[in-house]
Amino acid sequence: MAERSGPLDGVRALCFDVFGTVVDWRGSLIREFRALAAAKGIRIDAAALADAWRTGYAPAMDRVRKGALPWLHIDALHRMILDELLPRFDLASVLTEAEKIELNRAWHRLRPWPDSRGGLRRLKKAFTIATLSNGNVSLLNDMAKNAGLPWDLVLSAELFQHYKPDPETYLGAARLIGIAPGELLMVAAHKSDLRAAAACGVRTALVQRPLEYGAGRHPDPGPDPAFDLNVRDFLDLAEKLGA
Amino acid sequence: MAERSGPLDGVRALCFDVFGTVVDWRGSLIREFRALAAAKGIRIDAAALADAWRTGYAPAMDRVRKGALPWLHIDALHRMILDELLPRFDLASVLTEAEKIELNRAWHRLRPWPDSRGGLRRLKKAFTIATLSNGNVSLLNDMAKNAGLPWDLVLSAELFQHYKPDPETYLGAARLIGIAPGELLMVAAHKSDLRAAAACGVRTALVQRPLEYGAGRHPDPGPDPAFDLNVRDFLDLAEKLGA
Repeated sequence: MAERSGPLDGVRALCFDVFGTVVDWRGSLIREFRALAAAKGIRIDAAALADAWRTGYAPAMDRVRKGALPWLHIDALHRMILDELLPRFDLASVLTEAEKIELNRAWHRLRPWPDSRGGLRRLKKAFTIATLSNGNVSLLNDMAKNAGLPWDLVLSAELFQHYKPDPETYLGAARLIGIAPGELLMVAAHKSDLRAAAACGVRTALVQRPLEYGAGRHPDPGPDPAFDLNVRDFLDLAEKLGA
Repeated sequence: MAERSGPLDGVRALCFDVFGTVVDWRGSLIREFRALAAAKGIRIDAAALADAWRTGYAPAMDRVRKGALPWLHIDALHRMILDELLPRFDLASVLTEAEKIELNRAWHRLRPWPDSRGGLRRLKKAFTIATLSNGNVSLLNDMAKNAGLPWDLVLSAELFQHYKPDPETYLGAARLIGIAPGELLMVAAHKSDLRAAAACGVRTALVQRPLEYGAGRHPDPGPDPAFDLNVRDFLDLAEKLGA
């Protein structure tokens, strides 16, 4: 392990947000929709459907977090949102049930940003690297096997029956890894995720993912000195951590 | 993925018992005790202490399983047993608290059987491979990083707050992996573990580990046709599964 000094001294493990931070959900979904449209000989407004599907995600989790829905994992929430969207996109009767199931599994096949795999491989040599995602374990496992993501541990909201940003997720991850919250570094492209982690005593690294919502469409792309670290990508993160 | 046919058709993931099945707990502990004895210039009856420590393990878990103790993970149970044993081995006052903590972590450093790493690497190409151990997540993670065990998922009794052979462990593993119990193959060197898995509808593979308790000391070393598969080691398992 490389020697480190400075504000991140004592960090022993890194937890990564996944959707948007490790993988390009929007580009991957658009590719999936276009392939489906070509295979079926139909038109799909791919970018709009990707954006709408993702937009439904936080409100659906909030319904679980606030008790309006029982615990449901992300595969179930994604399917619920998709079923609400399909009529609006004139797809409800065009797709068979088998095609809808397959489409819902597009989230299991999301592709990593260009630096993700290489950065994680470097970081894994010096730290425990784990997911800490609202995605369910089987989704994260399928994604990792498909994309070659070398996680030590696949940690998920599903293990805690609490979605981020509930504190049970960040504290639960530190507990399972066997470290104090201050020895854990949360890596995410989303400031709200990091603010919630910091409130639990977890260290924070913001990674820039300017293309997450499409070119020129990021609502808040800049760094923020409130976080322990601001990095361009996972290679920059490895560099800054001496890994 | 290789094509397979026969009784194990449809198996999509493998869960492995760890202590004794993947790693040689007895040989590893004996090596640790001897190193400690040499470093301190003391005598330790290494084989007897290893056997006594392991013998305390099942009764301690049973106290948790039956509610006589609250949920405690294996690190805590191992330390409890160790503290009971040290006086009997004239070590209670010889070892410092720091040395006892370090000794308890010997379980995080157990070494794999010679075929474990190579077999798992082959199996990982065709299946999801996961631990399903009574060891806690941090113990299993430390062991994997130390020994180079390429798990897709680190699943543990700790995630379910139930120890094997409680059905919650086998069924919980299948649920997290996102498969039916009949699509999961439990791999273990212990027949009681496999019998409990089979009672949940999980498929079973018995792996021979004749040296687990020391040469010539295995109480029940033979194969058993009650299980779906009987294998010599993990390379034989990979071969028989076409991986």
